[in-house]
Amino acid sequence: MRLMRIGAPGAERPVVEVEGRHYDASGLTPDFGHDFWAEGPARLAEAVAAGSLPATTVDGERVGAALPRGGALICIGMNYAAHAAESGSEPPSRPIIFLKSPATLAGPDDEVTIPRGSTKTDWEVELGVVIGAEAANLGPDDDPLAHVAGYVLANDLSERTFQIELSGGQWSKGKCCKGFLPLGPYVATPDEVDAAALRLRSWVNGEPRQDSSTSDMVFSVADLVRDLSQYMTLEPGDLILTGTPEGVALSGRFPYLQPGDVVELEIDGLGRQRQIYRSGEQS
Amino acid sequence: MRLMRIGAPGAERPVVEVEGRHYDASGLTPDFGHDFWAEGPARLAEAVAAGSLPATTVDGERVGAALPRGGALICIGMNYAAHAAESGSEPPSRPIIFLKSPATLAGPDDEVTIPRGSTKTDWEVELGVVIGAEAANLGPDDDPLAHVAGYVLANDLSERTFQIELSGGQWSKGKCCKGFLPLGPYVATPDEVDAAALRLRSWVNGEPRQDSSTSDMVFSVADLVRDLSQYMTLEPGDLILTGTPEGVALSGRFPYLQPGDVVELEIDGLGRQRQIYRSGEQS
Repeated sequence: MRLMRIGAPGAERPVVEVEGRHYDASGLTPDFGHDFWAEGPARLAEAVAAGSLPATTVDGERVGAALPRGGALICIGMNYAAHAAESGSEPPSRPIIFLKSPATLAGPDDEVTIPRGSTKTDWEVELGVVIGAEAANLGPDDDPLAHVAGYVLANDLSERTFQIELSGGQWSKGKCCKGFLPLGPYVATPDEVDAAALRLRSWVNGEPRQDSSTSDMVFSVADLVRDLSQYMTLEPGDLILTGTPEGVALSGRFPYLQPGDVVELEIDGLGRQRQIYRSGEQS
Repeated sequence: MRLMRIGAPGAERPVVEVEGRHYDASGLTPDFGHDFWAEGPARLAEAVAAGSLPATTVDGERVGAALPRGGALICIGMNYAAHAAESGSEPPSRPIIFLKSPATLAGPDDEVTIPRGSTKTDWEVELGVVIGAEAANLGPDDDPLAHVAGYVLANDLSERTFQIELSGGQWSKGKCCKGFLPLGPYVATPDEVDAAALRLRSWVNGEPRQDSSTSDMVFSVADLVRDLSQYMTLEPGDLILTGTPEGVALSGRFPYLQPGDVVELEIDGLGRQRQIYRSGEQS
């Protein structure tokens, strides 16, 4: 089951896709927000099975961010050893956490504005994990994956000057520019993918940049959910961005993004994003 | 005008207080969320003046977090020189930003759970700034305070082991425990207070801890709104926590919080908070 949000920014409607067919879910829930994730996916699956949701089409319509505002947007830093190395760091001994702000949420194919004054706007393809059931202080006998409602493709866009040189060391300053979290096209339920072995890739103007597997993560999805639950209560609708693999501009091997560039990102089973970048100097 | 959210957790109703009288605002807005702040305060003031809101009482009812989930919760680090010194740091040359997660939001007098494993739970009284109008790339001729909808009392609770020793340097890990942002009792509109010179204080078990003035900030409210707008688009309903003055346990001068402790916090004109702390070991 794939969950999408379709329509103009701020006016998206919830849609579910099963076996290539789309159904309007707005009779069952106003949106895929915090209040939806605990019980909603099961009710949605029942409604699809019962044939009680109206069929719809999404052709030609904008695909919105796969989640609305309201959940925590939690990022994991340096979770692929080769990316830590290209960033000049050792792999961390425990997960590093920082957050993005709700204004970063954008549709997977929305145009991205390079912030005014930016010279180091960088891409980061990442596996996103959507929490479905509250997780707090999970112990060794708890199953962290029982708290996961689905998976989603994300671009954790980063402005490296803001993040590293102007931040006093706190990375969020370069992670919160408007539209810096293209998310989607859809949240896939866990039965659709094997999150432990997904190929994730990115391209700039058709040239390959990142090409790795989630099997290369330092901390697995289960590790992350268990660890984070010691420090915060994960809630339904929260999103964990699990870190990016090697192949970003920060490595020095590729130029940073310029107006007119086209970034594409893909994770097997989680769809594809395509963003055109524009200058923010006059906006 | 003071805006409050009254009722059980997750079921608060919006209430406005004018000259000591309370009015139910739920006919005008479902809540004081992202969609409210651009036009809502002016409409609310008109409705109060026109006598079109029903009178209500709040006696004996729970006061909820002054804002619902959905906005960015942006914290400013080391924004009082004496607190930077007691933390072992120089005052920053530009604002340091980190974020809190929505699960931190709590009512001003809600019981606080000390997280399991915590030995360094610490208080931080802070002036909160509520954004009313989008702010992006503000220039020298723009008035940052024209983007402010109000002010609110906050406790930016912090677990110092999580924040400093287990975080890999990213402070959010010790800032996101559930209930770690008691917020309120109310948002006051800017006409109610002079945000540049407010006395802010905290006590533990009746003994004074913090006692400073917002006039001691390294970066003023106007400085902060202008600076942040270069790195992110501030949106209606976003909250900026402007940093805490000296007098926290991290200084080494006071013990960290223990089960049974009572923390009180106050900012002139923005009301008072009182929290009882309980152990999270068995929860």
